Amino acid sequence: MSNTHRGDSPTSFFTDHYELTMVDAARKAGTADRKAVFELFARRLPTGRRYGVSAGQGRFLEGLANFRFDDEHLGFLSDHQVVSEDTLNWLAQYRFTGDIYAYAEGEPYFPYSPIMQVEATFAEAVILETYLLSVHNYDTAVASAASRMTRAAGGRPCIEMGSRRAHEEAAAAAARAAAIAGFASTSNLAAGLRYGITTAGTAAHSFTLLHDDERAAFQAQVDAMGNKTSLLVDTYDIETGIRNAVDIAGPELAFVRIDSGDLLEEAHHARRLLDDLGNTNTGIVVTSDLDEYAIAGLRSAPVDSYGVGTQLVTGSGAPTASLVYKLTTRQDANGKWVDVHKQAEGKASRGGRKYATRRYDDGVAAAEVVVASDEPQWDKHHRPLVHKVVDQGEVDTDHIGAGAVERAAARHEEAVSELPPTARRLQDGEPAIPTEFQLH
Amino acid sequence: MSNTHRGDSPTSFFTDHYELTMVDAARKAGTADRKAVFELFARRLPTGRRYGVSAGQGRFLEGLANFRFDDEHLGFLSDHQVVSEDTLNWLAQYRFTGDIYAYAEGEPYFPYSPIMQVEATFAEAVILETYLLSVHNYDTAVASAASRMTRAAGGRPCIEMGSRRAHEEAAAAAARAAAIAGFASTSNLAAGLRYGITTAGTAAHSFTLLHDDERAAFQAQVDAMGNKTSLLVDTYDIETGIRNAVDIAGPELAFVRIDSGDLLEEAHHARRLLDDLGNTNTGIVVTSDLDEYAIAGLRSAPVDSYGVGTQLVTGSGAPTASLVYKLTTRQDANGKWVDVHKQAEGKASRGGRKYATRRYDDGVAAAEVVVASDEPQWDKHHRPLVHKVVDQGEVDTDHIGAGAVERAAARHEEAVSELPPTARRLQDGEPAIPTEFQLH
Repeated sequence: MSNTHRGDSPTSFFTDHYELTMVDAARKAGTADRKAVFELFARRLPTGRRYGVSAGQGRFLEGLANFRFDDEHLGFLSDHQVVSEDTLNWLAQYRFTGDIYAYAEGEPYFPYSPIMQVEATFAEAVILETYLLSVHNYDTAVASAASRMTRAAGGRPCIEMGSRRAHEEAAAAAARAAAIAGFASTSNLAAGLRYGITTAGTAAHSFTLLHDDERAAFQAQVDAMGNKTSLLVDTYDIETGIRNAVDIAGPELAFVRIDSGDLLEEAHHARRLLDDLGNTNTGIVVTSDLDEYAIAGLRSAPVDSYGVGTQLVTGSGAPTASLVYKLTTRQDANGKWVDVHKQAEGKASRGGRKYATRRYDDGVAAAEVVVASDEPQWDKHHRPLVHKVVDQGEVDTDHIGAGAVERAAARHEEAVSELPPTARRLQDGEPAIPTEFQLH
Repeated sequence: MSNTHRGDSPTSFFTDHYELTMVDAARKAGTADRKAVFELFARRLPTGRRYGVSAGQGRFLEGLANFRFDDEHLGFLSDHQVVSEDTLNWLAQYRFTGDIYAYAEGEPYFPYSPIMQVEATFAEAVILETYLLSVHNYDTAVASAASRMTRAAGGRPCIEMGSRRAHEEAAAAAARAAAIAGFASTSNLAAGLRYGITTAGTAAHSFTLLHDDERAAFQAQVDAMGNKTSLLVDTYDIETGIRNAVDIAGPELAFVRIDSGDLLEEAHHARRLLDDLGNTNTGIVVTSDLDEYAIAGLRSAPVDSYGVGTQLVTGSGAPTASLVYKLTTRQDANGKWVDVHKQAEGKASRGGRKYATRRYDDGVAAAEVVVASDEPQWDKHHRPLVHKVVDQGEVDTDHIGAGAVERAAARHEEAVSELPPTARRLQDGEPAIPTEFQLH
């Protein structure tokens, strides 16, 4: 499934002004072509979280091919004197030709996990900074929240329906990130079209209110969509709504949706009533500002599916993943590699190109091991986490296009299942496994 | 300034699956063409906020012209059997032909302010729901946070630099919303290109780290950008950084940027040092996870400009505005208008087409007056807030294109200045003015 409507839109202007002026200055100074390694990582997880879920790699790699400057961009940069004529010519020719190493999409991450490393000239790598961060910060925030929700749901399907509470393009990305972290479907049609995610929906209160009464609305929906539909029963009175729904759709009615009230209590009432009416196969979908805590709180309720909106697309309290993109090592004038890091208070980073594995004890993850040296020989207790995804500018197609979301979802499910049980705790606490550094 | 890269991309698939199935069902039931009024409003402001700032109207109206279904969309809907053949044909012809009334972009809003009202057939109006909400919920969340920041800054310029912490398209919209709410410039080039917003930037730590030492980096930047540039002085040691910056750029140095540490203390140190070195005209820009509280906390510090990132693009704790889009009135089978509203617990809305004004006492706003009846004659103490922005499908170009952002920013500045002084309090509290209803 191609990224249809974004397929050939340039991504280069999703960037900060200073990325281009730095390229310009480095080119004039003769330092732009020094080889460099930039690293994408988080200094910490959102407060109290036990793990994060890396996401966005596939979207970034799709956009990388379109990271180019066309005449309109170059005209803007020229008119506003952002960079010199010489750098305009360089930008006109820009294509990324370096290497990129990354965690697989859907893979859990921890503080200082080297989620992505970009190896290229300084100029080629720095210019990607803003766009690379935008994609990963949003998608990772959503996937990390979504994973907690799908764990809390304990196998009951979650439906993503938060599009209306996020920027319209972010909404499609959120649906994608949610699918990677275990959501069963989305309401978002753009996500269906672009990424092949299953789309689903019920009906809105406005549909009921359009009609002369609730029965007329339910009849209209059943006439159009058949008996195996999902009816929204809380526009007026839930009990009457369920009776009307069963009366009109009959025993095949797939779901009733409840979007208000005390969901725990209403779900129990609804289940009893549905069973009393003979609709033992009709399921109950609940919606209404659910987050992972509300989902967990409904574990004992007879709920069959959760519709999750606002809290998903806003990262459930952590709307950005706070990932940073830092220069860790670069060549000097003689081609010798120099590890570098900022020394500012509270913002330390660790220099050098990294390898990373997850170490297992009896099949359970025990530590995130980050190594800044030549790649070690890993024994069978280690699972390497860093893979080459771009080779001299060529994107490994395993990470993009048809099937990429499904593969990431399968990987996420397996990798999270291997984390220790503390990972599934919703209470605030420390990361589920420690990050161990083996530095020089 | 045209919305360049989105200029002809369809917006119709930024939508929920159920919007289309509801259209399909209503068409089959013969209720799709009933005239209806949908209203965009918030039941409450984010916790503790004194006012919100409505934004997104211009982006929505630009996107409305591209709300159409092309062959790819229709193919998807057909392949996935989302709607009937007959409704596919209707979608293929879809163009909005109704009327839209709205608050001007940048206008403050309060609980139940009728920010936008869409009058059309049910089918034409309901299908816009998700897209309309996405645009307004995000842009309004950002503008509402931005307005608090620019008030806290008390006239010192704020620079928007949060692109990397938001979805890449959301970032451009955030820069636009921030400009409406008083930000002086943005780092985001897409926002510069699309909306004519002034772009600006300094340099990153990676630029300093690329070079053999800080002096080499500063020299490279000054060589490329001239002495009147902004140098980032906290990569190693701030005092040494300032001395290097002054030594290399001389008295014309425009700004030093400090991105870490105790900004209050560092700003005082930096000011004294700059003055001692003779650079009395060099300003100080501070950045580092600023929000409105941190900005207010720096009021006594010798700071000349604030760079604001994460907290801006994530709405400073309220990443979505919680705006809803509700059917308030519609015709019955005989063409008679019927006011409608959901009766669900905690989610009441008020039926009917609305007018709204802000009532003033001695030039200070005293109440938001919402009237559900024929439009009253307003006296000179009332400023009407609802304007027709789409007439039978034709968008009033005053709200889109070149100059729209500047006009919205001017309107915002004036309207906020007319709110009572409590509006500028950052502490949690009640809305600055009450919403008064004059219903039937």
